[in-house]
Amino acid sequence: MYFPFGSTYTFHYLRASFFFDFFTSQFHDMIRPLLSQQLPDFDLAAVYVSDAQYNRNIFFDTTPEAIRLYLLYNHWVLRIVVYAFIIADLALAIFEDPAVIPLPIWATTLIELVCLAVFTVRLVHYAKVIPRERFWKDPKNICIIVIILLSLVDMLIYGSLKATGYFAVRWSRVLRPLLLVNVTEGRQLRRAFRSIRNALPQILYVFLLFMFSVLMFSLMALKLFGKKGLTTNDGGAYFNDYLEIVFDLYVLVTTANSPDVMMPAYNSSVFFAVFFIIYILINTYIFMSVFLAVVYNNYKKYLKEEVRQLVRAKRHKMVRAFGVLQERKGEEGPVVTQASWNQLVRLVQPDISNAHRELLWSVSDDSNKGCIGKVAFVQLADLLNMQVIVVKSRPHPLQMWLPSLYLSSPSRLICRMVRHRLFVYAFDLIILVNAVFIGLDEENPLIANAEWAFLALYLLEILLKLYTFEPRAFFSKHEFWNWFDTVIVISALIATIINSVLKSSGGYTSRQILDIVFILRVLRLIRVVDSIKRFRAIINTLIKIGPTILTFGQLIVVVYYIFAMIGMELFKGKIRFFDAESTDPEKAFCGNPLLKNSLFAKHNYCKNNFNNVVSSFILLLELTVVNQCGFTAVTHVSARIFFVLFHIVVVIIIINIFIAFVLEAFFVEYTVDKSNLQSCLEKKIEELELGVKQYVLDSFLSARFFPGYKTVDGLLQRMFEADLDPEDFAEDEDFDPNNPSNVTFPNPNFDSV
Amino acid sequence: MYFPFGSTYTFHYLRASFFFDFFTSQFHDMIRPLLSQQLPDFDLAAVYVSDAQYNRNIFFDTTPEAIRLYLLYNHWVLRIVVYAFIIADLALAIFEDPAVIPLPIWATTLIELVCLAVFTVRLVHYAKVIPRERFWKDPKNICIIVIILLSLVDMLIYGSLKATGYFAVRWSRVLRPLLLVNVTEGRQLRRAFRSIRNALPQILYVFLLFMFSVLMFSLMALKLFGKKGLTTNDGGAYFNDYLEIVFDLYVLVTTANSPDVMMPAYNSSVFFAVFFIIYILINTYIFMSVFLAVVYNNYKKYLKEEVRQLVRAKRHKMVRAFGVLQERKGEEGPVVTQASWNQLVRLVQPDISNAHRELLWSVSDDSNKGCIGKVAFVQLADLLNMQVIVVKSRPHPLQMWLPSLYLSSPSRLICRMVRHRLFVYAFDLIILVNAVFIGLDEENPLIANAEWAFLALYLLEILLKLYTFEPRAFFSKHEFWNWFDTVIVISALIATIINSVLKSSGGYTSRQILDIVFILRVLRLIRVVDSIKRFRAIINTLIKIGPTILTFGQLIVVVYYIFAMIGMELFKGKIRFFDAESTDPEKAFCGNPLLKNSLFAKHNYCKNNFNNVVSSFILLLELTVVNQCGFTAVTHVSARIFFVLFHIVVVIIIINIFIAFVLEAFFVEYTVDKSNLQSCLEKKIEELELGVKQYVLDSFLSARFFPGYKTVDGLLQRMFEADLDPEDFAEDEDFDPNNPSNVTFPNPNFDSV
Repeated sequence: MYFPFGSTYTFHYLRASFFFDFFTSQFHDMIRPLLSQQLPDFDLAAVYVSDAQYNRNIFFDTTPEAIRLYLLYNHWVLRIVVYAFIIADLALAIFEDPAVIPLPIWATTLIELVCLAVFTVRLVHYAKVIPRERFWKDPKNICIIVIILLSLVDMLIYGSLKATGYFAVRWSRVLRPLLLVNVTEGRQLRRAFRSIRNALPQILYVFLLFMFSVLMFSLMALKLFGKKGLTTNDGGAYFNDYLEIVFDLYVLVTTANSPDVMMPAYNSSVFFAVFFIIYILINTYIFMSVFLAVVYNNYKKYLKEEVRQLVRAKRHKMVRAFGVLQERKGEEGPVVTQASWNQLVRLVQPDISNAHRELLWSVSDDSNKGCIGKVAFVQLADLLNMQVIVVKSRPHPLQMWLPSLYLSSPSRLICRMVRHRLFVYAFDLIILVNAVFIGLDEENPLIANAEWAFLALYLLEILLKLYTFEPRAFFSKHEFWNWFDTVIVISALIATIINSVLKSSGGYTSRQILDIVFILRVLRLIRVVDSIKRFRAIINTLIKIGPTILTFGQLIVVVYYIFAMIGMELFKGKIRFFDAESTDPEKAFCGNPLLKNSLFAKHNYCKNNFNNVVSSFILLLELTVVNQCGFTAVTHVSARIFFVLFHIVVVIIIINIFIAFVLEAFFVEYTVDKSNLQSCLEKKIEELELGVKQYVLDSFLSARFFPGYKTVDGLLQRMFEADLDPEDFAEDEDFDPNNPSNVTFPNPNFDSV
Repeated sequence: MYFPFGSTYTFHYLRASFFFDFFTSQFHDMIRPLLSQQLPDFDLAAVYVSDAQYNRNIFFDTTPEAIRLYLLYNHWVLRIVVYAFIIADLALAIFEDPAVIPLPIWATTLIELVCLAVFTVRLVHYAKVIPRERFWKDPKNICIIVIILLSLVDMLIYGSLKATGYFAVRWSRVLRPLLLVNVTEGRQLRRAFRSIRNALPQILYVFLLFMFSVLMFSLMALKLFGKKGLTTNDGGAYFNDYLEIVFDLYVLVTTANSPDVMMPAYNSSVFFAVFFIIYILINTYIFMSVFLAVVYNNYKKYLKEEVRQLVRAKRHKMVRAFGVLQERKGEEGPVVTQASWNQLVRLVQPDISNAHRELLWSVSDDSNKGCIGKVAFVQLADLLNMQVIVVKSRPHPLQMWLPSLYLSSPSRLICRMVRHRLFVYAFDLIILVNAVFIGLDEENPLIANAEWAFLALYLLEILLKLYTFEPRAFFSKHEFWNWFDTVIVISALIATIINSVLKSSGGYTSRQILDIVFILRVLRLIRVVDSIKRFRAIINTLIKIGPTILTFGQLIVVVYYIFAMIGMELFKGKIRFFDAESTDPEKAFCGNPLLKNSLFAKHNYCKNNFNNVVSSFILLLELTVVNQCGFTAVTHVSARIFFVLFHIVVVIIIINIFIAFVLEAFFVEYTVDKSNLQSCLEKKIEELELGVKQYVLDSFLSARFFPGYKTVDGLLQRMFEADLDPEDFAEDEDFDPNNPSNVTFPNPNFDSV
C-alpha cells in the first residue's frame, strides 16, 4: 500500500485505506500552505525545521513526493490512529482467554488481524518515505516485521490447535507491547530502554555483589539457625533449607516479610536479632542505596550523551534548512531574509499569530538588519518550542456593551471586592467549612441541603470572577486552576441535580452517580492548595514533569504486560476468588487445597491472582509496592524465579530510574529558581525578555515568555543543555541523524565502578 | 577544677582528678617536645596547625598556660575517657527499670553521678581553655550544663518519690543522648543535625502538601467506602471512621499494610482498586521521591556551605600559624624557613618519619629555595592529612639469614608459583569447594574432617605468602585483605581446636563456640570478592564511606534512644513475651486481653515490645524497616502519633539523608575514577607524585601518595573542595572560627521550593 502524489498536487490513495477518507479535508488544510508555494525549497526547509522542532530523526528522501508523503506520515491524525490500534491490540487481552469479558476466538482474531493490517500499512508508508537501504538497516522496522509475522504464525497455530481440541498457548501476546517501543513515535520509550540497557553492566556488578552477600548471609543463617530446631509461625521448620533461606532473605530486602522472618530467631535469643540487623543494614539500606546511585549516575550520564546527540542532530537539520534558504547579501556571509523566514515560519506553524511571529523575528534579528545569519537561524527550532503566552489587555466585553452599568460605582465596588485578597481568603474558609460538612454524615437533611448552598457559593464565585476579569483571559490556556474550578463545579452541579432527580422521582439512588458526586466534592477542596505560594511551586514542578512521567507509564505498561502475559499462562486458575455471598466450602482456601490454613487465604488475598489481565496488573502493582508472594506456595518453586525477576526488573531498575528522573527534574527546577542565568537556555530567555519589552511598548500587548517547553524532549534538553557549545553545528557529514543508536560519537563507556 | 602549669614546666593538678593519674606518663611523653622548645611561639603555631588538620574550631586563649591546657584537653586519652563515660551513661538504660539486667537504684544512681561528675570536670577544663565570654555564648556548653542540672534534679525527684512509694518517671533519660551531640568532639553529629535543621522548612512544605493529599484521599475513601457496609479481615467495619482511615492510608505510604488495606474494597469491586493505585502512585512513589529530592538537594547545598566554612576556618588557622613563624628574607615577602617548618612538623606530628617529613617539605618547596611562602605553607594541614604509605622495598628477612637456601632454585620456584595468577585462582576454587562443604551436613564425619583440611590449606596459603613477600610489607597498614585473612583463619583455627577439645573431652559442645566457628567459616569465603576487580572497586568505595556512616550511626542512636525512652515510659508492660516452654494461657495473646485473636498475637510478635531498652531498639529498627504497628491496638489512639512521628523523623528525614549521603559519596567516587584531574586536590596529588619520583631515586624508597584522607571531614571536603578558591585565605577578622553556627557568611537560605 503506498501513497503516490501526482505532480498536479492531487491525491491518489488506495481504496483499501478506508480510514484515510475521513480526514482528507483535514489533510488538505494542512497541505494548502505548501500548495501555494512556488519555490519547492520551502517545503524541504519547513520539514527540516519541523523535524528539528519535534526532534524527529527520520532520514527521508528529499524528492518533493517523498517530502509530501513524509508530511502525511507525521500528520497527527495518522499518529493517533496508530496509537489507537496499538491500544486496541493490547486491550485484546481483556477479551481473550483467560478473559474479563469473554469474546469468541473469531472476534478477537479478526480485531487482531485488522490491527496487524494497520501496522503493516504504516510500515509500508514509512518504507516509501525513507531510502530503501536505510529501512532495512533500522532494527525497529525489522522488529515490527518480526512481531507481525510471529503474531500471524501464532494465530494460525493457536487457531488450528484449538479447532482440533489441543492445549495451546498464545505466546505471541508477549510481543504486543514491543510495538509501543518500536513505532516511530516511541522515541521517548526507546530512549528509556537504551538508558536501561546502558546501565545494565554496572547494575549487574552491584547485583552480583549483592547476591553474593545474600548467599553468604544465607549460608550463615543455615549454620546458625538450621540445627536449632526452631519453628516458624505455621509450625514448619525454620531456616533449614538453603534455597528457602536464600528466597526468604531476598524477600527481606524488599521488607515484605519483616519482621516475620526474624521472629523465630529473635524469640529464641536476642543475640540472633543482631544477624538480621546487620543483614538489613547491609542489604536493604546500603545495597539498595548503591543501586539507586548506580542507576542514577548512569541515567544522568547516558541521558547527557543522548541529549547532546539530539541537540547536535537538531542543529544539523537547522543548518540544512539554512542551506536551502540562504542568500548572499553584500559582503556578509550567507543570510536568510525576513521574507523567506516569514514564509518558512508560516509553513512550519500555520497557527502562529502575526504578532507572535514578528516577536520571534525581532528576537532573532537583534540588530534589525532585515536578515539573519546561521547562528540566529539555528535558534528558530528552540524559539518555536517556547511557550509564548500573549495576554492581550482587552477591556471586559460588558464594558463595551453596557459601559454605563459596568463602570457605575456599585459595579466598580464588586470588581474591587473580587480582586481583593479577602475574597480569596473568604472562599478558602468556605472550602474548609465545606470539608468539615463533607466529613459529617450526609443522612442529616441539614447537611444534605448545605451541599446546595456550597454549590451556589462556588457558582457565585465563578460568576463574580467572570464579571470582574475578561472572560477570554480568565479561560486562557495557562489558567489551569480556573479551568479546574469551573469544570469541577459544573460537573458537581450536574451530577447533584441528576442524583436528586433520581432520588425524588423514584427514591432510587444510583450508587455510581453518588460516588461521582462524592469524588467531585472532594476534588473541589484541592483548590485551596493554589492559595499557598509554596504549595503552588511544588505542584507546578510536578505538573511540569507530568508528561515525562507518562513515558515511565508506558515503560511500566510494557513490562507489566509482558509479565502479566507470562504470569497468566503460568498461574491462571491456580487461585480462585469467591464472591462475598458465595457459600462454597472452597472459599476458605481460595479454591486451592494447598492454601488450606495459609496466611494468604486467612488474609483474604484470593483476588490477587493471574486469572485475567486486570487482576494480573493489580497483582503486579501490589508486587511492586511490596513483594507479596503468598502465591509461590501453590505452584512449583520456579514461580519464585518469576517474582525475583519481576522484582529485579521493576523495583531495582525501573523504579530507581523513576526516582532518578524525579530527583534530576527537581534539581533542575531548584537550580533554575535560584539563578536564572545558569543554563544557557535561561540566558536566552532573559535576552528575549529585553527584546520583548521594547516590542510590547509598540503594540500595546503584554506578552510573557515562559521558560517552559512544550515537549518532553524540551525538559530533558533543559536538564543538560548548559554543557553544550552553542557554536557546535554538527556539520561533519559522517554524523547520521537517522539512527542515533549507531552514531559516530563514542558511546559513553561506563567501565569503572 | 583547673590545671595550672607553673612557669618551671612542672604540673600541679588537683588530687580529686583521680582519673588523670594513670596517664600522667603518657601525657609527659606528649608534652616533652614542647618542653624542649625555647621559643614559645612554636607551641602556638603547632596548636594552630593541629587544629587546622583536625578541623577543630575552638577559640582558645593564646597564653602559654591556656595552650598547654588546650593540648591536654585534646589528648586522645581524655577524649576516649569522655566517650567511655557517655557510653556508660547511655548504657545505664540496660540496668534501670524497666531493665534487661536489673540493678538496685542506688547502684545506677551512683554510676550516673560519676558520669555527670566526669562531664562537669571536662566542661570546667573547657572553660579554662577558652575565654570566659565565649564559653557562655556557646549554646553547646549551656546545653551540657542544663542536661547535667536537669539530670540531678530528676534523680532527686525520682529517688524521693520512689522512696515514698509514689509513681515516678525518669524523664531526664531522654536528655542523655544529647550529650553525644554537645560534647566538643561531636562536630560531625552537630553538622548532621544542622543539616537536618536547615532542610526542615522545605521538608515541612512538602510534608504539609503530602498530608493534605492524605487527608483528601481519606475524605474520599470515607465517602466512597464508608457506607458500603464492607468489613475488614477481622470482621470490623471498613473505612468508616475518618481518623482510622487517615492512619491506615498514612501506613499505606510506608507499604506496611499493603495490600491488606485495599483488599476489602478490591474484593467488592475492581474499580475501587483504581483509588488505591492512584493513591500509591501519588503518595508512595511521587511524594516519597520528592522528599528524597528535597532532602538531597538541601543536604548537598548546606553541606557545601559548611565545608566552605570549614576550609576557610582551616586556612585562617594556617595563616595565623604562618604569622607566628614568618620571617623576612631578602626582598621576598614573609616566608617560613625549612628549620622552623621542620620544628613545627615535629611538634605537630611527632610520629612522622624523617623521610616522610622531608618528602612533604620537597612537595611544599617546589623550587628548592629553602623557605616557603604563605600559599605553600597553608597546604601543610592537607599534606599532613594525606595518607602517605612508604613501601620500603626491603629484601625478605630469610634472604638475609639464609641466603643460600632462600635463593636456591626450589625456593625461587615456590616464590614464582605463589606470585602466579593460578595460585589466586586455585585458592578461589578451594574457597568455592569449601562453600559447598559448609552448606552440606556437618554431622557427616567426612565433612567434619574436611574442615581440618581446609583450615590447613588456608594456613598453608598464608605461610607461603609470608615466605614469598616481605612480612612487614605483607602486614602493612593498608593491606586490608591480608589482615582480614590472617585474623579470620587464625581465629577459626583456635575456635575449631577449642570446640574439638571440648567435644572429645566430655562430648559436650558449646553452642556459642560452634556458632562462632560457623560465622568464621562463612566469613572466610568473603575473601573471594577481592579477586574480582569490579567488586573490589565497589567494596573500596563502601569502605571509604564507612567512617561517615558511623556518624549516621550516632545520629540514629540519638534518635532511637530518645524514642526508646519515651516509648518505654508510655508502653512498658503492655505486651508480654512468654518463653517457648511457657504454658501460661496468656501466651496466646501476649498477656494483653486486647490482643485476643489479633494478627499481632497470631504472628507471634509478642517480643516486639517496649519492655526493656534492647527490645525497644529492635522494635524501633523494625519500625524503620516496615511500619509494624500492631502495637497501637493495645493502647490509646495517641500511640499512633508516636509511630507517625517516628516514621517522619527516621524514615522521611534521616534515612533520606543517609541515602543522599551514599548517593553523593558514590558520585564523588565515580567522578574521581573518571578524570583524576577534576578536583583540585587530586591535581595537587598528581603534582606531588612528580616530586616524589625524584625523591624516591635519591633514597631508594618506593613511596606512594594515596588520594585518601584520614578523617571524615576529608571525604566531605573532597566532595566539595573543587568549587573553592585556593587563594581565599579568610583573612577578614570578623570571621569567627569558634562558632561556625553564628558565622558571618550568609547562612544558605533555601526559600523557594
